[in-house]
Amino acid sequence: MKRLRKLAVIGVGLIGGSFALALRRAGFAGTTAGFDRDRSALERAVALHAIDDIAESVSEATQGADLVVVAVPVRAIGPVLHDVGLAVDPKAVVTDVGSTKAEVVSIAREELRERFARFVPGHPIAGRESSGIEAATHDLFKGARVVLTPTRDTDPKATDIVRSAWEAAGGRVSTLDAVDHDRVFAAVSHLPHLLSFALVSEIASRADSQDLFAFAAGGFRDFTRIAASSPEMWRDISLQNRKALLDELDRYAVRLAIFRELIEKADGPALERLMAEARSARTAWATASRRAPSE
Amino acid sequence: MKRLRKLAVIGVGLIGGSFALALRRAGFAGTTAGFDRDRSALERAVALHAIDDIAESVSEATQGADLVVVAVPVRAIGPVLHDVGLAVDPKAVVTDVGSTKAEVVSIAREELRERFARFVPGHPIAGRESSGIEAATHDLFKGARVVLTPTRDTDPKATDIVRSAWEAAGGRVSTLDAVDHDRVFAAVSHLPHLLSFALVSEIASRADSQDLFAFAAGGFRDFTRIAASSPEMWRDISLQNRKALLDELDRYAVRLAIFRELIEKADGPALERLMAEARSARTAWATASRRAPSE
Repeated sequence: MKRLRKLAVIGVGLIGGSFALALRRAGFAGTTAGFDRDRSALERAVALHAIDDIAESVSEATQGADLVVVAVPVRAIGPVLHDVGLAVDPKAVVTDVGSTKAEVVSIAREELRERFARFVPGHPIAGRESSGIEAATHDLFKGARVVLTPTRDTDPKATDIVRSAWEAAGGRVSTLDAVDHDRVFAAVSHLPHLLSFALVSEIASRADSQDLFAFAAGGFRDFTRIAASSPEMWRDISLQNRKALLDELDRYAVRLAIFRELIEKADGPALERLMAEARSARTAWATASRRAPSE
Repeated sequence: MKRLRKLAVIGVGLIGGSFALALRRAGFAGTTAGFDRDRSALERAVALHAIDDIAESVSEATQGADLVVVAVPVRAIGPVLHDVGLAVDPKAVVTDVGSTKAEVVSIAREELRERFARFVPGHPIAGRESSGIEAATHDLFKGARVVLTPTRDTDPKATDIVRSAWEAAGGRVSTLDAVDHDRVFAAVSHLPHLLSFALVSEIASRADSQDLFAFAAGGFRDFTRIAASSPEMWRDISLQNRKALLDELDRYAVRLAIFRELIEKADGPALERLMAEARSARTAWATASRRAPSE
């Protein structure tokens, strides 16, 4: 933080903007340059004091920066990293904020080439219902988990710098292998989103969907809240993390078949036992995490 | 309401207690008798002014009542209706509050026999995270949907009386055929509960479940909130509504298989289209229902 003179934020949306605001709040006294394909987002980011300077390109934002944060959707990360790789200072550190990591590592290796050792893949587990720079806030990451997935080739000093920056922003930083990261998030995030989308999709596909929706209540509301998430984002996550997600989906199908069989056989005791185990695990998790930051 | 002199509440938990409080609040000036197997619940119900008199049996509560509300778990409804049938005044009306209806109708037909025409099956779509008489409140049903499922044999005057009582309690009353009711709630309530239980069950069953739970965030919290529901209640609902629930589960499995195939084939446009349709349906529902009462 102390030695940081210039921060570059590529993509000034909710995450990029909040990160810039959080570092500023934590005492970062240097300059923040921002680049975004959406010019009006950049202007709003200046007005909100998230960034100081509007760059005209990824290269311009990157030049002279000590830390480059790429906060664009993962599908857009390849070309951005390509430009970053050409402009970045050899001593600078680059990081990203994508929800899947194995594919990002692979893209970064290809695009950054000899600069790859200074790239630290990252994933802050934070978000809000609203998106865009208007929703950015300096405390978005306060208490939020941030996962870094450095590879064997990643310079440990680069990882330390990114860790310090996220800690300054209020995050609780863990490191995981990228493949483990993707497996974990397939289970606890990507699969639930898919299941929720599928339920609403099924009901909406029926001729009598309005009659069904008319009687939906609180349980449905909670279960389907994540089906109101961005289709583009979840399309990308589903495809980028395809292998792990399909594995999780298949595991889930096996478990659901067990429930199905118990219902079909009317095996009340076994059904109740599985439900009680689930409730107990869910309650223990909720107690331990108290209020987990949202995704 | 005006002609109602005595109300009997069998089962003074959250629903029974709240119904009694709501009718009192709406101007019911008669006497409320309560019966519950849990004596301390009855004493608390008196202290809360939900009921006036503690009955020593179902029969005693039922005798002389104009309206008998059976607010016990559906698995306990048979014996209760049996006793109600023996003690109930021929002009009195009997109703229940169970979450499934076809099985209740069948049990009621058997237990109430010649009194069956005065039985109006009911299902208030209301609840809270907490249960029991302590959680009872006069406004639990304010704005809540209440579904009645009278049969061809049900006396329309009996249905009118039950409808009036629920409307006085603040509910928005609809009628449905019992089989349709069970199909609708299998889709929008019972299936989501099952899917949520199954997800937590799957994750909890793994050796590394603690590592997985550690990274679960807001989407997981919403999706699994209903997996903290009562295992006994959901075991019973799953079994009582077995046929409709299995049908819904199978329809869901077909839809999920479509999502799976699109992910496997990496068909981004089709995947995004399905997700976008789901989001749009979910958003339209949320807007229309604003704040749907919880189950």
